[in-house]
Formats: sequence, C-alpha cells, structure tokens
Amino acid sequence: MKRLAVLTSGGDAPGMNACIRAVVRGAAYHGIEVIGIRRGYSGLILGDGVPLTSSTVSNIIQRGGTILKSARSPEFRTVEGRKKAYDYLTNLAVDGLIVIGGNGTFKGALQFVDEFSFPVIGVPGTIDNDLFGTDYTIGYDTAVNTAVEAIDKIRDTADSHERIFLIEVMGRDSGYIAIQSGIAGGAERVLLPETGVSAAELIAGLQQGRNGSQSSVILVLAEGEGRGTATVVAEQIKKQSGTEFDLRVTTLGHIQRGGAPSAGDRILASRLGLAAVEGLLKGKKNVMVGVVNNGLVYSGLHEVVSRSKPISEELLRLVTILNGSESHTH
Amino acid sequence: MKRLAVLTSGGDAPGMNACIRAVVRGAAYHGIEVIGIRRGYSGLILGDGVPLTSSTVSNIIQRGGTILKSARSPEFRTVEGRKKAYDYLTNLAVDGLIVIGGNGTFKGALQFVDEFSFPVIGVPGTIDNDLFGTDYTIGYDTAVNTAVEAIDKIRDTADSHERIFLIEVMGRDSGYIAIQSGIAGGAERVLLPETGVSAAELIAGLQQGRNGSQSSVILVLAEGEGRGTATVVAEQIKKQSGTEFDLRVTTLGHIQRGGAPSAGDRILASRLGLAAVEGLLKGKKNVMVGVVNNGLVYSGLHEVVSRSKPISEELLRLVTILNGSESHTH
Amino acid sequence: MKRLAVLTSGGDAPGMNACIRAVVRGAAYHGIEVIGIRRGYSGLILGDGVPLTSSTVSNIIQRGGTILKSARSPEFRTVEGRKKAYDYLTNLAVDGLIVIGGNGTFKGALQFVDEFSFPVIGVPGTIDNDLFGTDYTIGYDTAVNTAVEAIDKIRDTADSHERIFLIEVMGRDSGYIAIQSGIAGGAERVLLPETGVSAAELIAGLQQGRNGSQSSVILVLAEGEGRGTATVVAEQIKKQSGTEFDLRVTTLGHIQRGGAPSAGDRILASRLGLAAVEGLLKGKKNVMVGVVNNGLVYSGLHEVVSRSKPISEELLRLVTILNGSESHTH
Amino acid sequence: MKRLAVLTSGGDAPGMNACIRAVVRGAAYHGIEVIGIRRGYSGLILGDGVPLTSSTVSNIIQRGGTILKSARSPEFRTVEGRKKAYDYLTNLAVDGLIVIGGNGTFKGALQFVDEFSFPVIGVPGTIDNDLFGTDYTIGYDTAVNTAVEAIDKIRDTADSHERIFLIEVMGRDSGYIAIQSGIAGGAERVLLPETGVSAAELIAGLQQGRNGSQSSVILVLAEGEGRGTATVVAEQIKKQSGTEFDLRVTTLGHIQRGGAPSAGDRILASRLGLAAVEGLLKGKKNVMVGVVNNGLVYSGLHEVVSRSKPISEELLRLVTILNGSESHTH
Repeated sequence: MKRLAVLTSGGDAPGMNACIRAVVRGAAYHGIEVIGIRRGYSGLILGDGVPLTSSTVSNIIQRGGTILKSARSPEFRTVEGRKKAYDYLTNLAVDGLIVIGGNGTFKGALQFVDEFSFPVIGVPGTIDNDLFGTDYTIGYDTAVNTAVEAIDKIRDTADSHERIFLIEVMGRDSGYIAIQSGIAGGAERVLLPETGVSAAELIAGLQQGRNGSQSSVILVLAEGEGRGTATVVAEQIKKQSGTEFDLRVTTLGHIQRGGAPSAGDRILASRLGLAAVEGLLKGKKNVMVGVVNNGLVYSGLHEVVSRSKPISEELLRLVTILNGSESHTH
Repeated sequence: MKRLAVLTSGGDAPGMNACIRAVVRGAAYHGIEVIGIRRGYSGLILGDGVPLTSSTVSNIIQRGGTILKSARSPEFRTVEGRKKAYDYLTNLAVDGLIVIGGNGTFKGALQFVDEFSFPVIGVPGTIDNDLFGTDYTIGYDTAVNTAVEAIDKIRDTADSHERIFLIEVMGRDSGYIAIQSGIAGGAERVLLPETGVSAAELIAGLQQGRNGSQSSVILVLAEGEGRGTATVVAEQIKKQSGTEFDLRVTTLGHIQRGGAPSAGDRILASRLGLAAVEGLLKGKKNVMVGVVNNGLVYSGLHEVVSRSKPISEELLRLVTILNGSESHTH
Repeated sequence: MKRLAVLTSGGDAPGMNACIRAVVRGAAYHGIEVIGIRRGYSGLILGDGVPLTSSTVSNIIQRGGTILKSARSPEFRTVEGRKKAYDYLTNLAVDGLIVIGGNGTFKGALQFVDEFSFPVIGVPGTIDNDLFGTDYTIGYDTAVNTAVEAIDKIRDTADSHERIFLIEVMGRDSGYIAIQSGIAGGAERVLLPETGVSAAELIAGLQQGRNGSQSSVILVLAEGEGRGTATVVAEQIKKQSGTEFDLRVTTLGHIQRGGAPSAGDRILASRLGLAAVEGLLKGKKNVMVGVVNNGLVYSGLHEVVSRSKPISEELLRLVTILNGSESHTH
Repeated sequence: MKRLAVLTSGGDAPGMNACIRAVVRGAAYHGIEVIGIRRGYSGLILGDGVPLTSSTVSNIIQRGGTILKSARSPEFRTVEGRKKAYDYLTNLAVDGLIVIGGNGTFKGALQFVDEFSFPVIGVPGTIDNDLFGTDYTIGYDTAVNTAVEAIDKIRDTADSHERIFLIEVMGRDSGYIAIQSGIAGGAERVLLPETGVSAAELIAGLQQGRNGSQSSVILVLAEGEGRGTATVVAEQIKKQSGTEFDLRVTTLGHIQRGGAPSAGDRILASRLGLAAVEGLLKGKKNVMVGVVNNGLVYSGLHEVVSRSKPISEELLRLVTILNGSESHTH
C-alpha cells in the first residue's frame, strides 16, 4: 500500500478534522501518502484531490467542521458517477479509500465497493450516534455537550420565570442526543422516537411537577420523535391544557454541529483514523471501524447500514428516576 | 436611610445577580438593610420579601438568571395593585426601592412614583441594550457573546457545506444584539429594524458573495427587523431566488438570555448596583443610573422611557465595509 | 432499608453534585430517606448531617464542586474517630453509607467497614481516573476537557511566537489526564509517570520537530512524572540544550478541578449514584460501583485500593504516531 | 495611497487577527493593497511580506493568536536594521505601515518614524491594557474573561474545601487585568502594583473573612505587584500567619493570551483596524488610534509611550466595598 485517499461526507461533525489528521499522520508513520478528496463523493467524481502531509494537518485537531468540506452528490448515485470516481482513484494509483461519515455515506460506499471491489473503510462521523457497530460516533460527545450547555442557559431563564421549556435537539430518527443531553441537562422529561408519551401523559407530568417542588420544567424533544417539531408539540400541549402552562419553545438547531470538538471526540477520532489506516494495511475492506466496549472493532458495512442500535435501557430508566418527582415511589 | 428594597422585573438578563449582590453589599457598607422582593412587582403586591445580607449574596455573581425571580404582574397596572405595593413597602419601613429591568419595568416604576412619591431608582437590566440613558445595559455583553459563540459554531458547518445561514438573534425592536454579534461573528450582512434591505438587494448581495471568494455566507437577522421571523424571511428569499441558494435558518432563541455573565456584565452590574444605593443615599429618585462614556450618569425615568437610543452610525458602516466583498471599492 | 447517608471526601471533582442528586432522587424513587453529611468523614464524626430531598438537589447537576463540601479528617484515622462516626450513623438509624471520593476515601471506608461491619458503597469521584474497578471516574472527563481548552489557548500563543511550551497537568501518580489531554490537545510529546523519557531524548525530539514542519511544540507533563515540577523539568532542558529553545512553562493547577461538569461526567455520576443506592438495596456492601465496558460493575473495596489501573497501550502508541514528526516512518 | 503594510509585534493578543482582517478589508474598500509582514519587525528586515486579500483573511476573526506571527527583533533596535526595513518598504512601494502591538512595539515604531519619516499608525494590541490613549486595548476583554472563567472554576474547589486561593494574573506592570478579573470573579481582595497592601493587613483581612460568613477566599494578585510571584507572596503569608490558613496558589499563566477573542475584542479590533487605514488615508502618521469614551481618537506615539494610564478610582473603591465583609460599615 503506497497511497490512500480520504474524504468526509454527509453532515459535518466536530472531530472530522481530528480524524483526517490521524489518517494522514497514521499513514505517514507507515510511509503511505494521502490524497484528501474535497467535497465528499462529488470531489471523487470531479477529481478534486489534494495531497495531505503531516504539516498540512497541523493545528486542525481543535477545529470544528471539515477542512475537506462535504457536499451532496446526486451523481454518485449513478453507475456513471461511481465509474468516474473509480477511474480517478485508479489514475491516482490510490490503493484504498477512507470515508468519514454516516449512514448515507456508507450506503454510497457499499455500492461502490460492490461494483469495483475497491478497498474502502468507513469511519463513523456523525453527531447522531445512530450507527450500529460503534458505541460512539465522532461528533456525538461534542453535540451532546453543546446541547447541555444550551439547556443550562435556558434553565437559568426557566428558573427565573418559573416556566416550562420545550427544547428540540437534533438526532434524525434516533434519540441519542436527546437522552444524553436530557439526563445531563437535568430535564424533567425526554421525548424520544424510541419510546413515546401521549400528550395527555405529558400534561399530567407537568401538572405533577407544578404541584411538586419544581420551579421550572425542561422537556427535551428529539427531532425525530414523530409528532413534529417542537412548535407543533407545544401547540398540542397548549390546545389540550389551555393556558395553564407558560410554555416556551427553543429549537437548538445547527449550533449542535459546530464548535471545537470535545476531548472525547478528538481522541475517538484519532483512534479511529489510525485504525482505518491500519485496517487497510491489514487487508480489511468493506468495513467500518468503531469502538465497542473501549476496543476497536471492524464491522461489515452491510451489517452497519442494515442494523439499528437501540438506546440503552439503563439510560431510559435513569431519566425517569432522576426527574425529581418523588411520587414515583412505590 | 435605614432600609431599601430591590427587585428584578421583565425578562431576566445575565448579571442581574451580580447587581443584586452589589446592591446588598453596597447597602451593607453604608449600614443599610436590604429586603429582596421576589417575582418583581408581583412580589411587592403579595408581600413576598426576604432579608438579604452580604452572605446571602455570596457566590451568586457568576450565576445567570435572577435569584429574586421575575414575573409579569397585571395587577401592578392597576391603582389598587400599586397601592398594595406601597402599603407593603411602608409597613416594612423601606425608604427606597431599586428596580432592575427594562423599559416595561421603568414604566411601571414611573406610575408608582407619580402616585406615591416613593423614591425609586432604576437599573438597566435587559439583554436588548435598547435603553436611553446608558451606553450598555446589564446582560447585553453576555447575550452578544453567546450569539457570537453560536455564530462561530454555525460558521463551521456553513463553511464545510458552503451554505448560506440566516441566523435570527434577539433584541425586540432594536438591532443592538444583531449589529454587534453580526460584526463580531463576521457576518456578511446584518438585517436590522433600524435600516432595512429589500429582498432583491439581499439576493443580489448573496449572488455577489457567491461569485466572489466566499465559501459560506452568514446573515444575521434582528428579531424585530419587520419582515417576520427568520423562517418567513428565508421563504421570501427562496421564493424570489428559486433553488439557487442552499439557505438554512437558525433561531438562537432563549440561550441568549442565560449563562454565566461575562466579565463586562459583572463589572457593569456591580458598578450600577452600588451607584443605585448611593444615588438613593444622595437623595436621587425617579431616575435610572447608567454608564455613559464610562462615567456614571443618572437620567430621569420619564426621559429614559420616552427617548430611543440610535444605533451607532460607525458600526453600521463597519458591517458594510468588513463583509469581505471587495466590489465595494470606489 | 429506610435511610442512607451520603458524603463527599478527598479532592472535589466536577460531577460530585450530579452524583449526590442521583443518590437522593434514586433513594426517593425507592422510598428511602437520605442524610447528607457535610465535610466528609469529619462531618460524620461531628454529626453534621442534613436531610436531603428531591427538591434540595434541584438545579445542582450543573454545578462544580460539592454542595456537601469536603475536608481532611485526621480524626477518622483513629479508632475513636471512627467509633464516633459509627455512633452518629446508628443514632440516626442510617442503614447504609455512600462515600464519593478517591483512593484515600476508600481506604478510610475500608477500615470503618472492617471495624463496624457497616454497609458502605464507594463511588469513584476524582479527576485523576486512577482507580481500579472503573474505566472512568467522576470528574475525569471534565478535567481533561478543561486541560484541553487550556492547551488550545496556549497553542494560539505558541504558534504566534513559534515557541515550545511545557504544560503541567494534574493526575497525582498517574498519567491519565496527561495522556488524554495530550492526545486531544495535539501535543508533540507527553511525559508520564508510566513511561518516562530522558532529557536527552526529549531534546532530540525538540530538535527534530524544529527541523521539521512544526511552528510550535507542546509538551504535556503529568505532575507525578517523577522528575519534578514543570519548572524543574524546563530547567533541565535548558541546562542541557543551552539557549536553543524558547521554552515556556505553564502549570494548569486548580482550574482542572472546577467548572460545570461535562455531559459525560453528569451521566456517569447519575448512573453511579443510582447504582450505589440500588447496590445497597440489593445487599451489596464493602464495594465500589464503577463502569467497565459501559456496564455497571461492583468491585470489592480491598481490590480497588490495592490494585492499579494501567494506561492503555493503544493510547500510548497513539501519542507517538500522531505527533507530526514524519521521520517515524519505517 | 496605493499599498500599505501591516504587522503584529510583541506578545500576541486575542483580536489581532480580527484587526488584520479589518485592515485588509478596510483597505480593499478604499482600493488599497495590503502586504502582511510576518514576525513583526524581524520580517520587515528580512523582507518576509505576503499579499493579503479579502479572501485571505476570511474565517480568521474568531481565531486567537496572530496569523502574521510575532517575534522579537534585536536587529530592529539598530540603525542598520531599521534601514533594511525602510528599504524593504520602499522597494515594495508601500505608502504606510500599521503596527499592532504594545508599548515596546510603539517605541520601535517611533525610532523608525523619527529616522525615516515613514507614515506609521499604531494599533493597541496587548492583553495588559496599559496604554495611554485608549480606554481598552485589543485582547484585554478576552484576557479578563479567561481569568474570570478560571477564577469561577477555582471558586468551586475553594468553596468545597473552604480554602483560601491566591491567584496570579498577568498584566506586566499594571493591575488592569487584576482589578477587572478580581471584581468580576468576586475576589475578596485584589493586590495591585498601583495600590499595595502589607502582609499584615492581608492576614488581618483573611482573619476577618474567616470570622465572617465567607466559606472561601479568593485573592487576585497582579504579576507586577512588586512582592514577587504568587508563590513568594503565599510564603510570606504562611510565614507570618503560621498554619492558620489553608492557602493554595495558582498562576494562570499563558492561557490568558489565547483563545477565541470575545465579541468586545473583535469589535474593538475591527473598529481600530479600519480607523488605522482611514487615518493613513487622511494623512495621519506617527499616531496610535484608540477608543476613548466610545469615540475614535488618534494620539501621538510620543505621548502614548511616555504617559501612563491610571487605574479607575471607582473600580478600586468597588473592590473594597463588594468584598462581602460587612464590617466596613461606618
């Protein structure tokens, strides 16, 4: 193995740069050159690669976003597009490709691998943590911390005005960001795609909190919970409960994608970046490298994209017990 | 003067606690007792006061929100309500009242003063910075820094995807938060109530940026700009420009109200809190204490609530010049 | 089980409050009362306990330090002291004791348990992460993030002046904070108690970095590395290398202990706090509850205090490979 | 005016990049080219200039440090060195020079101006805020906020252990950082070069605090206070007070120089950068541009380097009154 290529694709996630750095420096350690492909699969088709060296990736470990940029590539969904990508890689004499991204990125990679038998290793880079084959994805820890810092701020104003806040966090179809930021933010209730609670139960919970000791209530809503945006859910609650609650809505939005990565994400990204390089060196392909129970694990991409990762039952129970309503006592 | 009362009213702002601390410790220094009134004017009517001592206010200078809480008080808008408030204060033998809040708070204070000739001093506590009589209000610096940190994060993802982001910031009818966070966030354009730009001009600017060197564009919208929320403005742009721009919307929302106050807000709040106490001691009443050109200034409450504070022409010009489009050259 | 007591002891760590909250709310969920003991073992001897309820622990999950305070207790090292503690607990009809702290805390607990057969469960609360029986201790993730934020800031100035910085981080006799903050901070080299590098090797590394592409160099030194403080190590380097390097020293110090806990620490603390309560309920005693490979594990306190936890070989290798010096190539 | 040069010199300060950006974009607005000189006066002598355009300075407003780097230049202290610098500038057809830095930078500039009558404008860029002719220097607000965040963290641990902490902050010979971070950090006492307090008075204050309500005490020491480092001062206190106080020392060090600039520093830097360009355009030279009472003011460099700026009496009084000891009452 003499040369490999690396790209980032899908939604950007904090720690992608730390991962690119680890790929480049890990490759350099093994005497391998690295070509950085700009704008994901789109750059592969357009031939937009740049050589990356150890010094190119200096001083990026702490930067949010991705220096390689990311973009959608409808053309990569076509056979013709993927053929161009393959031609570009073979013209460059690239021996392996590392793709950092999420589910959509890996689906694209699978088609490419199936058609051209090109060695590809995936690295889980998405704030959503919704990937089978790894306990944590790059960007998740940072996104949760960003959400928690926001919840802390909103708690200040919720407490001062003794209000209820409904806070919508990201996570696509999964409740990972919601469950962790809800627990860490001390939320009274977390609304997840995986569980679900009726508006009536929700209102009952709010009334109970009001009768109890709580001077403010924070509800965390996962964007994929199913009933719609936070604004829609708030309207439902208001419609059913009348003017009883002073309910405010905040949608955290894109701040959850950015910012300097947390220490945890930088370390995870560094470990996975090096493991991707060394996986290719060992002849692994068509896999994603993840961290399971603290150890590095390579899982087949087919399995990764077809299986789902359930939310920890322990955490679901935790959020119920810690919400401060003593009446759970049995 | 033996005893004074202090309350916070209106939207909470970071630094209100630092101000309460300065009132209490400033009063203690002069041998004056302080009663903290909970929940603003509402607590004045309900008689919800608690004695505050130097140790009560230990370790609060760094806390967001307000330990005295805040609330709306429709009853204080009635003569009967204000009479109850007056009776409570006189029963407690309180010699003066310090109200920390914004325009609405001061309007309430004015009516109270007019009817009962009770000595009141206002302290400007609002993130909006929209008060005549002071260059800065308590909470403004923190809110701007919070908005800028959010813009920095969004810039990471905007750059990675080469997108346009429309970010709505708070500020009620004024563009103070927008102009400062826009300049500090490196926004390409700032949309303010005070100026205004047509959708057509906006689109022209975006096209120009696209043709230039910009890989991402950040537009900062003041909530009171006039055309509606960020979502509405984004729809306008999309309708007129077609699918040309990959435009995303983020409304920062209530995170701008919370969080540990910045150093600047803590110092401002400390100065104004002490100055309010010492103003009462010197016999001042019916005034707001502010900072103008670094010096402490007492302005009549009538003037404060009736005049507006224009946005600096220098800053308006600055945002135009620094937006990175070289074609402004003349 | 009707009533339990909880205390914090040893150096404070971010997340201790989140753990106290989880103990109290977890206990409330099971209908158990909680007495909070102030100032660690000292408060147990002096009888300084306060009832804690679900509302007492509202709004503390995000606070650094410990609301129960911590203190040294020489008297608890005596049989008489421990007897007083036992009498206090039995007088209060406390059925079990939860101690949140580190190695010294658990040694004290062990003696107490051995003498009085009182049910005690330990929770690992220390920034140092130097405890056998748990992958992570409460406070460690926050301390690492604080150190990394500091390193990021120092990198700005190191880069601007093209200087070398030697940064000393905490960790007592272990290199956990150093290894993780070093990797995440992009340090060129990490000096640990567990490994060790001669001054000559260090200087050779610096020279190599200088000849390479590095415009700045960050060395992270664990306080327990063995050669002395950062100042001493810097003197060694200067003495042996002459005036060749513009070397600056920063000792991060106590900032690493404070601050709002990270999301990770809040969740860990919440899980362990509940698990401590439920461990007591299940009749466990004389154990510490930790997290190993994401699962809750109870280990005997004797084992915890007598065994050490080695630093991950994978991370030690990672810091060498990622330091940006391409000459490692083989 | 067709072309100007800009450099940063002396200790780096957060906001220098925002200022470089404003110089470049302000110049572009007026159709003027900009050459960025690397490594301060040293780069001027070595001819190390690079053209800067509006896109070169994209995405740097939020970065700490200086993209132009800074360095000492002994050679610029010689006539020969300055002659080389002059030759380089004239060969490049540069019409004016903007130097961003502190007192030492401006002294160098003065000699250069005196010898070669070259138009130079200084911009105050130093965290120390010790420059006459401006209320605030670029970097000061960020440094104070960084110090306050550190004090907040240390307060957590000081409170938990009921300890006294002596925290040394930067500021060279002036107490600006100390006074503002001390007030905002809620310090019980601030030790400044400008005032001074005997060890005996200090101990008396500590004893008084202990007898009062304070569970922890924070002392902020300016590095230039005169008695030596925090470690030396702590030894003095310990020697005179015996083992009475559990006194800990933290020296904040270089973290105060780095980090993303605060909103305030970015705006100040943007205003001053544009004003420097427009000052040159108006024919001003041999001046520093500062902000006094919110307005832009140009002061002669001779005056700037020869006069000192006293610390506000109001702030000195504030720190005494707010320290929480009620016994000041008169």
